[in-house]
Amino acid sequence: MALRGSLRASRALLRAPGPPGRGLCSRPPAFGFLFDVDGVLVRGSQPVPAARRAFQRLADGGGRLRVPVVFLTNAGNCLRSAKARELSGALGLQVSPEQVVLSHSPLQLFSQFHQRCMLVAGQGPLEENAHDLGFKHVVTIEALRKAYPLLDMVDLSRRPKELPPPTTGFPTIEGVILFGEPVRWETSLQLITDVLLSNGNPGAALQDVPYPHLPVLACNMDLLWMAEAKMPRFGHGTFLLCLESIYRKVTGRELKYEALIGKPSPVTYRYAQHLLQQQAERQGCRAPIQRLYAVGDNPMSDVYGANLYNNYLKSAGHSQAQAGLGRSPQAASPQAEVSLELRSECSSAVQSCESILVCTGVYRPENTQAQAGEAVFHGHRDFCFDPSLLEASHIVQDVDDAVQLAFEKENWS
Amino acid sequence: MALRGSLRASRALLRAPGPPGRGLCSRPPAFGFLFDVDGVLVRGSQPVPAARRAFQRLADGGGRLRVPVVFLTNAGNCLRSAKARELSGALGLQVSPEQVVLSHSPLQLFSQFHQRCMLVAGQGPLEENAHDLGFKHVVTIEALRKAYPLLDMVDLSRRPKELPPPTTGFPTIEGVILFGEPVRWETSLQLITDVLLSNGNPGAALQDVPYPHLPVLACNMDLLWMAEAKMPRFGHGTFLLCLESIYRKVTGRELKYEALIGKPSPVTYRYAQHLLQQQAERQGCRAPIQRLYAVGDNPMSDVYGANLYNNYLKSAGHSQAQAGLGRSPQAASPQAEVSLELRSECSSAVQSCESILVCTGVYRPENTQAQAGEAVFHGHRDFCFDPSLLEASHIVQDVDDAVQLAFEKENWS
Repeated sequence: MALRGSLRASRALLRAPGPPGRGLCSRPPAFGFLFDVDGVLVRGSQPVPAARRAFQRLADGGGRLRVPVVFLTNAGNCLRSAKARELSGALGLQVSPEQVVLSHSPLQLFSQFHQRCMLVAGQGPLEENAHDLGFKHVVTIEALRKAYPLLDMVDLSRRPKELPPPTTGFPTIEGVILFGEPVRWETSLQLITDVLLSNGNPGAALQDVPYPHLPVLACNMDLLWMAEAKMPRFGHGTFLLCLESIYRKVTGRELKYEALIGKPSPVTYRYAQHLLQQQAERQGCRAPIQRLYAVGDNPMSDVYGANLYNNYLKSAGHSQAQAGLGRSPQAASPQAEVSLELRSECSSAVQSCESILVCTGVYRPENTQAQAGEAVFHGHRDFCFDPSLLEASHIVQDVDDAVQLAFEKENWS
Repeated sequence: MALRGSLRASRALLRAPGPPGRGLCSRPPAFGFLFDVDGVLVRGSQPVPAARRAFQRLADGGGRLRVPVVFLTNAGNCLRSAKARELSGALGLQVSPEQVVLSHSPLQLFSQFHQRCMLVAGQGPLEENAHDLGFKHVVTIEALRKAYPLLDMVDLSRRPKELPPPTTGFPTIEGVILFGEPVRWETSLQLITDVLLSNGNPGAALQDVPYPHLPVLACNMDLLWMAEAKMPRFGHGTFLLCLESIYRKVTGRELKYEALIGKPSPVTYRYAQHLLQQQAERQGCRAPIQRLYAVGDNPMSDVYGANLYNNYLKSAGHSQAQAGLGRSPQAASPQAEVSLELRSECSSAVQSCESILVCTGVYRPENTQAQAGEAVFHGHRDFCFDPSLLEASHIVQDVDDAVQLAFEKENWS
């Protein structure tokens, strides 16, 4: 029920900035785009040259998009409004915050945690992001560190010089949100582990290790991403890998996620589709969106996610049990419930989600043969490795080619 | 051969500060102590109360030790002289740097790497430590980060604002020394991985992953250690665990160590024994040391290490193949060679190494029963889990009781 409330709220949000383009829907598109950002539209701080061409193709003469577009990124260390401004600058047209899905955006739907005291880890405007998503009681790693100065001992220069007085009055933590990779991983890894081992009171002595541990919600499981350097850089998935490895080594048990969102999670695609449909409605196009084109550079998140969601769409009409979701016990549980609630509310006309892989980021066609011989699974532990889901529907050079391809398939221009 | 040179150098060093006590050897002790530091003599910055009593017992009226003592710690983020000063203050008597074995001290013996260009990670006086140990060409993580500004991208506030010029003239890295846990783990983890994947040229594009990778020498594999907080804190072993997990996830292969030293490695105990024997000689006691008492708080490093070394001593007279060393393929290779060279040079009278576990640190007797039911292996991946090696020869309350126990066993006071 609360989920529906969240959806109503987001719908109200989406209606707010009055958009243009009603007249352009003489032949409304029955399709929409989900664009990944890093490695597709930009690399680090530099725009990919094809991106501007692609958006000139997508826009009318007044710079207004003719096709619904959602920017679907696993970035999360910023506000949606900041990401929209950044994209506006890079693409040369107005992008609204309601077109942006960050890795954490679907947390809006997890209202069962909104009233709990949540520890948040990551960078950027964490507290503002958490509040915008509906979380009422938020504690940062830095606040926890200050409240318990004896916990964070790795940095010799930051160790307390004297024994501090005992901590009193600090709230018991009831859950953890991993928004994105933090700085000083040692501090976050230590304090999150302390919170999980102590059931939210990290000043206490360890008795039995509580298990299952407090709920952990994680956004963005990308192991690697492509910036300006020639080799890929560590993403939040690498931080999660460290946390999982430490928890397993220390306790002998597996860290469990109550939610694991961002691409390739189907919850994230379902949420993005919802925004795309709202956008089409706002544009006055009553024709339902039937086909999604997901353009990305990362086989493990963009292609895998789009194909997994495509399986989900295909199976939705028949039997839920057949959904790709069901393959992984982790990915199936709370996320699947959210998806189902979403689906039951907005009966959707969307039938397919095609994956289009570009060669301007992580994926390099020249390495494919070498990689095929010794495929290393860079996806998350909880998304079991189905090699068929790594095969893109289409491979093209860049995002401009991807847009052209979709237009040809749709016989639309 | 070079190893013998190193030993001669260390012997010369040991002779330097003329120690006292010749007259006290009317009945010279045939035993010596290896004392762990954290959790035995100090906790964080606070001395353990029993430590002063123990050293009053060990010293004569003039504050001179009557029994050879080596301080055997897995700390390594400092100079031996600084640790000696710290111990002198805590124990109320003069400790010399030659009595201190830090986690990295045995690297002095690995002279085959002393001429190579080595990347060093950790905290404290890294370059000074490396040079003192014999390494001639050292590059810090910070220098590497400055030379390749596009590699370290996790901290949003430290990312380069503009594309930097290509790096030229930076030396190719030929090996990695992991001295201890660094700060900003994400930076060290990323740059070390880059160096291993690029064969020492982290600005280059990734072709095939070189394997075996460049040599990695690691000091101190303690997963956890006990400071003032009620729960144990992350040690360098936790950092190593992260690095191993990342390397395996990214490449599909195992990270290998060319050396893995510090307790419980037998190389470290052999090196400590060597210093103990030198100290007895300097005291003018010609009676050979026959028995070692290793006092520690950590079953996984202190007890396991002493027992493993005891097995090694027992088997040394018979067959090398039976040594506990041989159980683990990793721990066996280069370290075992060093040990053998050490042994062949100084034929030793040492026959046993007894482990004495104290209850003032990591080990808590009240948790033993709970722990026994669900034993979690906190040792390093490369030291296979032999539960019998976790059983201390003796368990006592504190270090003062440990000294009394040894005196009683030796019928010495």
